[in-house]
Amino acid sequence: MYVILVYDIGEKRVGKMLKLCRKYLSWIQNSVFEGDITEVRLKELILGAEKIMKKEEDDSLIIFSSRSDKFLEKQIIGKERSSTDNFL
Amino acid sequence: MYVILVYDIGEKRVGKMLKLCRKYLSWIQNSVFEGDITEVRLKELILGAEKIMKKEEDDSLIIFSSRSDKFLEKQIIGKERSSTDNFL
Repeated sequence: MYVILVYDIGEKRVGKMLKLCRKYLSWIQNSVFEGDITEVRLKELILGAEKIMKKEEDDSLIIFSSRSDKFLEKQIIGKERSSTDNFL
Repeated sequence: MYVILVYDIGEKRVGKMLKLCRKYLSWIQNSVFEGDITEVRLKELILGAEKIMKKEEDDSLIIFSSRSDKFLEKQIIGKERSSTDNFL
């Protein structure tokens, strides 16, 4: 499946979250990642994220998933942040 | 069409960008918006965003679009930021 992941978490935890997400997905902007991922690996990622996140401090994670990236078109305006975009 | 919009822009321009995006889409997290929008209105939004953005300062806007939200599943972990989510 293809996912877009965005997080909004406390500064102290951003480093850990970034590292975790990079293990599973490609970074495309600030706190936004995308990529192909299996359901099992996505569950792993979510479990890992839940360990990092502090819900009492309003940390938030949103995952959009689609069966395939063919249902999604991506348009970038301005600076392209990620070098991995070249491979998509 | 259904879009997910994420921006990463300089602090000075965030207020204007937030206001612009709110006119067209629903705010769901930090710098993330989503919603149904016509192609014409999306073009309007992009033109408006380009006027606000400073590319020389690395401002960036990414728009994922899909023909319909039925191709996308949304999962929220942690705090739900937007009140409009209740209506989705």
